[in-house]
Amino acid sequence: MAYKHILVAIDLSEDSVVLVNKAATLARTMEAKLSLIHIDVNYAELYTGLIDINLSEAQHRMADDAQQQLRHLADKAGYPVSHTLVGSGDLADEICEAIDNLDIELIVCGHHQDFWSKILSSAKQLINRTPVDMLMVPLK
Amino acid sequence: MAYKHILVAIDLSEDSVVLVNKAATLARTMEAKLSLIHIDVNYAELYTGLIDINLSEAQHRMADDAQQQLRHLADKAGYPVSHTLVGSGDLADEICEAIDNLDIELIVCGHHQDFWSKILSSAKQLINRTPVDMLMVPLK
Repeated sequence: MAYKHILVAIDLSEDSVVLVNKAATLARTMEAKLSLIHIDVNYAELYTGLIDINLSEAQHRMADDAQQQLRHLADKAGYPVSHTLVGSGDLADEICEAIDNLDIELIVCGHHQDFWSKILSSAKQLINRTPVDMLMVPLK
Repeated sequence: MAYKHILVAIDLSEDSVVLVNKAATLARTMEAKLSLIHIDVNYAELYTGLIDINLSEAQHRMADDAQQQLRHLADKAGYPVSHTLVGSGDLADEICEAIDNLDIELIVCGHHQDFWSKILSSAKQLINRTPVDMLMVPLK
Protein backbone atom coordinates (compact mmCIF):
# COMPACT_ATOMS: atom_id res chain seq x y z
CA MET A 1 0.00 0.00 0.00
CA ALA A 2 1.64 3.23 -1.14
CA TYR A 3 -0.26 5.96 0.76
CA LYS A 4 -2.66 5.48 3.67
CA HIS A 5 -4.44 8.84 3.71
CA ILE A 6 -4.83 11.25 0.78
CA LEU A 7 -5.86 14.91 1.24
CA VAL A 8 -7.21 16.91 -1.70
CA ALA A 9 -6.74 20.70 -1.58
CA ILE A 10 -9.77 22.25 -3.25
CA ASP A 11 -10.39 25.83 -4.38
CA LEU A 12 -14.08 25.11 -5.14
CA SER A 13 -13.62 26.09 -8.80
CA GLU A 14 -15.10 24.02 -11.65
CA ASP A 15 -11.93 21.92 -11.74
CA SER A 16 -12.57 20.60 -8.23
CA VAL A 17 -14.65 17.71 -9.58
CA VAL A 18 -11.72 16.60 -11.78
CA LEU A 19 -9.33 16.70 -8.81
CA VAL A 20 -11.68 14.82 -6.47
CA ASN A 21 -12.37 12.13 -9.09
CA LYS A 22 -8.66 11.65 -9.73
CA ALA A 23 -7.88 11.43 -6.03
CA ALA A 24 -10.79 9.00 -5.51
CA THR A 25 -9.39 6.73 -8.25
CA LEU A 26 -5.98 6.80 -6.56
CA ALA A 27 -7.46 6.16 -3.13
CA ARG A 28 -9.42 3.19 -4.47
CA THR A 29 -6.30 1.71 -6.12
CA MET A 30 -4.27 2.12 -2.93
CA GLU A 31 -7.10 1.34 -0.49
CA ALA A 32 -6.34 4.68 1.13
CA LYS A 33 -8.51 7.07 3.14
CA LEU A 34 -9.62 10.20 1.28
CA SER A 35 -10.24 13.66 2.76
CA LEU A 36 -10.98 17.09 1.29
CA ILE A 37 -9.81 20.51 2.46
CA HIS A 38 -10.67 24.04 1.35
CA ILE A 39 -8.72 27.03 2.62
CA ASP A 40 -10.31 30.43 2.16
CA VAL A 41 -7.26 32.58 1.45
CA ASN A 42 -9.18 35.73 0.54
CA TYR A 43 -9.54 36.91 4.12
CA ALA A 44 -5.95 36.13 5.05
CA GLU A 45 -4.69 39.71 4.92
CA LEU A 46 -7.64 41.02 6.92
CA TYR A 47 -6.72 38.95 9.94
CA THR A 48 -6.11 41.04 13.01
CA GLY A 49 -6.57 40.50 16.70
CA LEU A 50 -9.83 42.41 16.60
CA ILE A 51 -12.21 41.08 14.01
CA ASP A 52 -15.24 43.14 13.20
CA ILE A 53 -18.40 41.30 14.12
CA ASN A 54 -19.84 41.54 10.60
CA LEU A 55 -16.66 40.26 9.03
CA SER A 56 -16.67 37.39 11.51
CA GLU A 57 -20.25 36.58 10.55
CA ALA A 58 -19.44 36.79 6.85
CA GLN A 59 -16.53 34.40 7.34
CA HIS A 60 -18.75 32.06 9.27
CA ARG A 61 -21.30 32.06 6.45
CA MET A 62 -18.58 31.45 3.86
CA ALA A 63 -17.17 28.56 5.89
CA ASP A 64 -20.65 26.99 6.11
CA ASP A 65 -21.11 27.45 2.39
CA ALA A 66 -17.67 25.94 1.63
CA GLN A 67 -18.36 23.00 3.95
CA GLN A 68 -21.61 22.35 2.07
CA GLN A 69 -19.83 22.44 -1.30
CA LEU A 70 -17.15 20.05 -0.01
CA ARG A 71 -19.81 17.62 1.20
CA HIS A 72 -21.51 17.83 -2.19
CA LEU A 73 -18.18 16.98 -3.88
CA ALA A 74 -17.66 14.16 -1.38
CA ASP A 75 -21.09 12.70 -2.19
CA LYS A 76 -20.24 12.65 -5.90
CA ALA A 77 -16.75 11.17 -5.43
CA GLY A 78 -17.93 7.57 -5.69
CA TYR A 79 -15.58 6.72 -2.83
CA PRO A 80 -16.04 7.27 0.93
CA VAL A 81 -14.62 10.59 2.12
CA SER A 82 -13.31 10.55 5.72
CA HIS A 83 -13.05 14.27 6.48
CA THR A 84 -14.15 17.53 4.85
CA LEU A 85 -12.21 20.46 6.31
CA VAL A 86 -12.65 24.18 5.83
CA GLY A 87 -10.11 26.69 7.09
CA SER A 88 -8.95 30.22 6.47
CA GLY A 89 -5.62 31.98 6.61
CA ASP A 90 -2.26 30.96 5.17
CA LEU A 91 -2.73 28.04 2.79
CA ALA A 92 0.58 26.31 3.55
CA ASP A 93 0.17 26.74 7.35
CA GLU A 94 -3.36 25.36 7.35
CA ILE A 95 -2.58 22.42 5.09
CA CYS A 96 0.56 21.49 7.06
CA GLU A 97 -1.54 21.50 10.24
CA ALA A 98 -4.12 19.21 8.62
CA ILE A 99 -1.31 16.90 7.42
CA ASP A 100 -0.16 16.58 11.04
CA ASN A 101 -3.62 16.15 12.55
CA LEU A 102 -4.90 13.56 10.08
CA ASP A 103 -1.63 11.67 9.37
CA ILE A 104 -1.85 12.60 5.70
CA GLU A 105 0.72 10.92 3.43
CA LEU A 106 -0.16 12.49 0.09
CA ILE A 107 -1.59 15.87 -0.79
CA VAL A 108 -3.29 16.36 -4.18
CA CYS A 109 -3.70 19.81 -5.69
CA GLY A 110 -4.35 21.44 -9.02
CA HIS A 111 -2.07 23.87 -10.81
CA HIS A 112 -3.12 26.27 -13.52
CA GLN A 113 -0.48 26.89 -16.17
CA ASP A 114 -1.57 30.36 -17.15
CA PHE A 115 0.65 33.44 -16.86
CA TRP A 116 -0.38 34.56 -13.38
CA SER A 117 -0.41 31.10 -11.87
CA LYS A 118 3.17 30.61 -13.04
CA ILE A 119 4.16 33.57 -10.88
CA LEU A 120 1.67 33.49 -8.00
CA SER A 121 0.65 29.97 -7.15
CA SER A 122 -0.54 28.62 -3.82
CA ALA A 123 0.57 25.18 -4.97
CA LYS A 124 4.12 26.41 -5.49
CA GLN A 125 4.19 27.91 -1.99
CA LEU A 126 3.07 24.59 -0.62
CA ILE A 127 5.88 22.73 -2.39
CA ASN A 128 8.42 24.52 -0.22
CA ARG A 129 6.62 23.60 2.98
CA THR A 130 4.86 20.24 2.71
CA PRO A 131 6.46 17.42 4.73
CA VAL A 132 4.65 14.80 2.61
CA ASP A 133 4.46 13.93 -1.09
CA MET A 134 2.43 16.21 -3.30
CA LEU A 135 0.61 15.34 -6.51
CA MET A 136 0.20 18.32 -8.82
CA VAL A 137 -2.51 18.01 -11.45
CA PRO A 138 -2.17 20.47 -14.37
CA LEU A 139 -5.43 22.33 -15.11
CA LYS A 140 -6.35 24.50 -18.07
CA MET B 1 -5.82 1.51 -12.91
CA ALA B 2 -4.78 5.08 -12.18
CA TYR B 3 -1.60 5.61 -14.26
CA LYS B 4 -0.26 3.34 -17.02
CA HIS B 5 3.32 4.59 -17.32
CA ILE B 6 5.36 6.39 -14.62
CA LEU B 7 8.55 8.32 -15.40
CA VAL B 8 11.03 9.16 -12.62
CA ALA B 9 13.24 12.23 -13.14
CA ILE B 10 16.58 11.48 -11.51
CA ASP B 11 19.51 13.79 -10.72
CA LEU B 12 21.77 10.84 -9.75
CA SER B 13 22.21 12.21 -6.21
CA GLU B 14 22.01 9.97 -3.13
CA ASP B 15 18.27 10.63 -2.95
CA SER B 16 17.72 8.89 -6.30
CA VAL B 17 17.33 5.50 -4.57
CA VAL B 18 14.51 6.89 -2.38
CA LEU B 19 12.71 8.29 -5.44
CA VAL B 20 13.08 5.10 -7.50
CA ASN B 21 11.86 2.93 -4.60
CA LYS B 22 8.85 5.15 -4.05
CA ALA B 23 7.98 5.14 -7.75
CA ALA B 24 8.46 1.35 -7.90
CA THR B 25 5.99 0.90 -5.01
CA LEU B 26 3.47 3.09 -6.83
CA ALA B 27 4.00 1.27 -10.13
CA ARG B 28 3.47 -2.09 -8.41
CA THR B 29 0.25 -0.87 -6.75
CA MET B 30 -1.07 0.47 -10.04
CA GLU B 31 0.38 -2.25 -12.27
CA ALA B 32 2.00 0.54 -14.26
CA LYS B 33 5.15 0.60 -16.41
CA LEU B 34 8.14 2.34 -14.81
CA SER B 35 10.88 4.30 -16.62
CA LEU B 36 13.80 6.45 -15.46
CA ILE B 37 15.21 9.64 -17.01
CA HIS B 38 18.26 11.72 -16.23
CA ILE B 39 18.83 15.10 -17.87
CA ASP B 40 22.32 16.53 -17.68
CA VAL B 41 21.57 20.23 -17.31
CA ASN B 42 25.16 21.30 -16.66
CA TYR B 43 26.07 21.54 -20.32
CA ALA B 44 22.87 23.31 -21.31
CA GLU B 45 24.36 26.79 -21.59
CA LEU B 46 27.35 25.56 -23.60
CA TYR B 47 25.15 24.37 -26.44
CA THR B 48 25.97 26.03 -29.73
CA GLY B 49 25.84 24.98 -33.34
CA LEU B 50 29.57 24.19 -33.25
CA ILE B 51 30.49 21.84 -30.46
CA ASP B 52 34.17 21.37 -29.75
CA ILE B 53 35.17 17.77 -30.34
CA ASN B 54 36.53 17.34 -26.79
CA LEU B 55 33.37 18.73 -25.26
CA SER B 56 31.38 16.39 -27.44
CA GLU B 57 33.50 13.45 -26.25
CA ALA B 58 33.17 14.52 -22.61
CA GLN B 59 29.40 14.71 -23.00
CA HIS B 60 29.36 11.30 -24.61
CA ARG B 61 31.33 9.85 -21.68
CA MET B 62 29.02 11.53 -19.16
CA ALA B 63 25.95 10.19 -20.95
CA ASP B 64 27.43 6.65 -20.87
CA ASP B 65 28.21 7.04 -17.18
CA ALA B 66 24.71 8.34 -16.42
CA GLN B 67 23.14 5.50 -18.42
CA GLN B 68 25.16 3.00 -16.35
CA GLN B 69 24.02 4.61 -13.07
CA LEU B 70 20.39 4.57 -14.22
CA ARG B 71 20.66 0.86 -15.08
CA HIS B 72 22.17 0.22 -11.66
CA LEU B 73 19.21 2.02 -10.02
CA ALA B 74 16.83 0.05 -12.26
CA ASP B 75 18.40 -3.25 -11.16
CA LYS B 76 17.89 -2.35 -7.50
CA ALA B 77 14.30 -1.09 -7.97
CA GLY B 78 12.75 -4.51 -7.29
CA TYR B 79 10.33 -3.84 -10.16
CA PRO B 80 10.90 -4.12 -13.91
CA VAL B 81 12.04 -0.84 -15.50
CA SER B 82 10.92 -0.35 -19.11
CA HIS B 83 13.20 2.47 -20.25
CA THR B 84 16.28 4.27 -18.92
CA LEU B 85 16.78 7.57 -20.74
CA VAL B 86 19.66 10.04 -20.62
CA GLY B 87 19.44 13.46 -22.21
CA SER B 88 20.99 16.88 -22.00
CA GLY B 89 19.72 20.41 -22.45
CA ASP B 90 16.64 22.07 -21.05
CA LEU B 91 15.07 19.86 -18.37
CA ALA B 92 11.45 20.77 -19.09
CA ASP B 93 11.90 20.42 -22.89
CA GLU B 94 13.55 17.03 -22.63
CA ILE B 95 11.07 15.65 -20.11
CA CYS B 96 8.06 16.89 -22.08
CA GLU B 97 9.50 15.16 -25.17
CA ALA B 98 9.91 11.90 -23.23
CA ILE B 99 6.32 12.24 -21.91
CA ASP B 100 5.13 12.42 -25.54
CA ASN B 101 7.31 9.61 -26.86
CA LEU B 102 6.60 7.10 -24.10
CA ASP B 103 2.96 7.99 -23.33
CA ILE B 104 3.88 8.91 -19.75
CA GLU B 105 0.92 9.62 -17.45
CA LEU B 106 2.78 10.52 -14.23
CA ILE B 107 6.14 12.12 -13.63
CA VAL B 108 7.86 11.65 -10.25
CA CYS B 109 10.55 14.04 -9.08
CA GLY B 110 12.28 15.12 -5.90
CA HIS B 111 12.31 18.62 -4.46
CA HIS B 112 14.81 19.93 -1.94
CA GLN B 113 13.38 22.42 0.53
CA ASP B 114 16.59 24.35 1.21
CA PHE B 115 17.01 28.06 0.52
CA TRP B 116 18.39 27.83 -3.03
CA SER B 117 16.00 25.14 -4.17
CA LYS B 118 13.09 27.33 -3.13
CA ILE B 119 14.27 29.94 -5.61
CA LEU B 120 15.94 27.91 -8.35
CA SER B 121 14.30 24.55 -8.82
CA SER B 122 14.12 22.41 -11.94
CA ALA B 123 11.02 20.77 -10.50
CA LYS B 124 9.25 24.11 -10.25
CA GLN B 125 10.10 24.93 -13.87
CA LEU B 126 8.61 21.62 -14.86
CA ILE B 127 5.34 22.34 -13.02
CA ASN B 128 4.60 25.14 -15.46
CA ARG B 129 5.16 22.92 -18.48
CA THR B 130 4.21 19.31 -17.81
CA PRO B 131 1.05 18.14 -19.60
CA VAL B 132 0.71 15.21 -17.15
CA ASP B 133 0.39 14.82 -13.37
CA MET B 134 3.52 15.34 -11.34
CA LEU B 135 4.37 13.78 -7.98
CA MET B 136 6.80 15.90 -5.95
CA VAL B 137 8.68 14.10 -3.21
CA PRO B 138 10.21 16.41 -0.57
CA LEU B 139 13.89 15.67 0.09
CA LYS B 140 16.13 16.95 2.88
